[in-house]
Amino acid sequence: MSLDEAKQSLYAPVEREETAYHLWQQFDAVLAKKLSEFFVGGLYQREILPQRERELCAVAALTVLRCQDELRLHIHAARNKGATREEITEVIFQMLSYGGAPSLVQGLKTAKAAFIERHEWDGPK
Amino acid sequence: MSLDEAKQSLYAPVEREETAYHLWQQFDAVLAKKLSEFFVGGLYQREILPQRERELCAVAALTVLRCQDELRLHIHAARNKGATREEITEVIFQMLSYGGAPSLVQGLKTAKAAFIERHEWDGPK
Amino acid sequence: MSLDEAKQSLYAPVEREETAYHLWQQFDAVLAKKLSEFFVGGLYQREILPQRERELCAVAALTVLRCQDELRLHIHAARNKGATREEITEVIFQMLSYGGAPSLVQGLKTAKAAFIERHEWDGPK
Amino acid sequence: MSLDEAKQSLYAPVEREETAYHLWQQFDAVLAKKLSEFFVGGLYQREILPQRERELCAVAALTVLRCQDELRLHIHAARNKGATREEITEVIFQMLSYGGAPSLVQGLKTAKAAFIERHEWDGPK
Amino acid sequence: MSLDEAKQSLYAPVEREETAYHLWQQFDAVLAKKLSEFFVGGLYQREILPQRERELCAVAALTVLRCQDELRLHIHAARNKGATREEITEVIFQMLSYGGAPSLVQGLKTAKAAFIERHEWDGPK
Amino acid sequence: MSLDEAKQSLYAPVEREETAYHLWQQFDAVLAKKLSEFFVGGLYQREILPQRERELCAVAALTVLRCQDELRLHIHAARNKGATREEITEVIFQMLSYGGAPSLVQGLKTAKAAFIERHEWDGPK
Repeated sequence: MSLDEAKQSLYAPVEREETAYHLWQQFDAVLAKKLSEFFVGGLYQREILPQRERELCAVAALTVLRCQDELRLHIHAARNKGATREEITEVIFQMLSYGGAPSLVQGLKTAKAAFIERHEWDGPK
Repeated sequence: MSLDEAKQSLYAPVEREETAYHLWQQFDAVLAKKLSEFFVGGLYQREILPQRERELCAVAALTVLRCQDELRLHIHAARNKGATREEITEVIFQMLSYGGAPSLVQGLKTAKAAFIERHEWDGPK
Repeated sequence: MSLDEAKQSLYAPVEREETAYHLWQQFDAVLAKKLSEFFVGGLYQREILPQRERELCAVAALTVLRCQDELRLHIHAARNKGATREEITEVIFQMLSYGGAPSLVQGLKTAKAAFIERHEWDGPK
Repeated sequence: MSLDEAKQSLYAPVEREETAYHLWQQFDAVLAKKLSEFFVGGLYQREILPQRERELCAVAALTVLRCQDELRLHIHAARNKGATREEITEVIFQMLSYGGAPSLVQGLKTAKAAFIERHEWDGPK
Repeated sequence: MSLDEAKQSLYAPVEREETAYHLWQQFDAVLAKKLSEFFVGGLYQREILPQRERELCAVAALTVLRCQDELRLHIHAARNKGATREEITEVIFQMLSYGGAPSLVQGLKTAKAAFIERHEWDGPK
Repeated sequence: MSLDEAKQSLYAPVEREETAYHLWQQFDAVLAKKLSEFFVGGLYQREILPQRERELCAVAALTVLRCQDELRLHIHAARNKGATREEITEVIFQMLSYGGAPSLVQGLKTAKAAFIERHEWDGPK
């Protein structure tokens, strides 16, 4: 499985055309390869942390930074690596402490949109 | 164990005088109590996420936000809840992806200082 | 009047479906209630500051943080609590000093949109 | 009274040597004058908002941005323009909503330091 | 050539209706004039830095701040002042170091959109 | 010349012990090497932009992000790659537009400290 395929399945059901790697390639194929090897190969495949925990930490960081596009990708990745919807939602609620209410509200909107994309949203509780 | 004591042991060896709760009390004792009950009782004691994972997510968020004082407290909390030094360090390295190199560098400086406070720093490797 | 109704009228003409409380409820009704009681009951109803001044301070903070969705709500709240359009606009202009020109430009775009929603926009001066 | 003197008395007891204007002058006297005229003359002396409210809005923005040096100056300015310590503290507590707990904690530390400089701190309550 | 015209040609092919100056005028014509004179006259026309380098620095800052609307304007300005597409793209890639991957990804999306507006995008390489 | 030496001379007179690479090595020598190769080899040594312009862009980004430690290093690097003090200062003044006055003030303080370290500060003008 190539790096490109590994990235894609990590973010499924997000299409390859929407990933960072695909965008980088349109600007500079050589640099795109270096970047992808560095992040996927050099950083994310280190085995010190389980992938599920790594993705929950990504959700935490992207929620407080209010990076909604990247948060959507990593909510999918967290689900694909075994985190439950309740766990992902709980991390986003926790971020109220560090990013304030706007981070929480935007984070939940993004989570709802991602869960709908996965056909995992069962409406208001 | 009171809320105050629970907070203190979470952040040990940080002294009670250095916690947020102690600061809040100096300004408004009634509001300090509400805040502490909300964060400790309402948010952090929910059992959906293990405390160890919650603290790793706090480390992630505070690293990218470059909040060094609060990061120091939550590095201690993560250690007190069972995260290893290697896991904490790995989360900080991962944050390069979302916060850039300044977040990584400041995060590692804070981690080194916290590990020294815990007598857990064994020098350059 | 329930907390839910109090929040809604604060943000009128924004519909209840667009408020943070409504979103929180879709994820976790128990936590939504705690959050709402804490922010509305615990923090915003303290009488040390007049509501009009509190809302102008919210406009200031949300402008420099570039949280446009939340800014829209608090521009409505500021108007509903007696701030004039000129005062709200002036706070946003002042934020040039602290958040730079992008905060000012995005803040004015949001203010224009909110004033149009209130039928209070009378075109270029 | 010159612009320089106006700025200084606004921030008293902060010395002229610690103001932005003094720093700018050391780099470029012509630009320093333009900047000061723009901010003090063009923006801050407009009479749409009372100076006291303007300074509370500055406190709000600088708290969520975690700009502690500038926050210290504007806490002095808010006091000098008639805001009470309780009102200033209340704005900082309110900012928990938008900037999260780190903004609140750092803001209160700065407020305590400024109140001590003014001989207005009467210890833990 | 008036300030208004100077601003417009700087950002071509962006229309006058989309510039900050046009927006400011709708709120306060007097302040809009002061602001524009200060930024264009006071700051940007100083001849210490070539306009091309100044615009590359604006691209750098707006990329890490993730201000996409303003970045779009300054990508046009950088092209209009002689920077190549490759240079602009390189600055955005460099910002990975300081703003992390989300800044890079959003920056490249904005660059692609601006290059398409200029009819200078020749598809994936 | 090794990567380590290249980095050091870039930031002179800053000592090797104060660089990011030296810090990374204390935590994880393997990852430190990958990081350094990626940033120095993969990103900064690309020849699309002159090193002097690249460093001015770094100064721009670090000023608006208010990363004072990293800004200090890149002010030295900009000087070492041929930028004048006036050009560096001008970039920092320009950042008022995007980061607001706190970014400008903190940036100038850092520049003054770096110029003093280089024995290039000749006092108030």
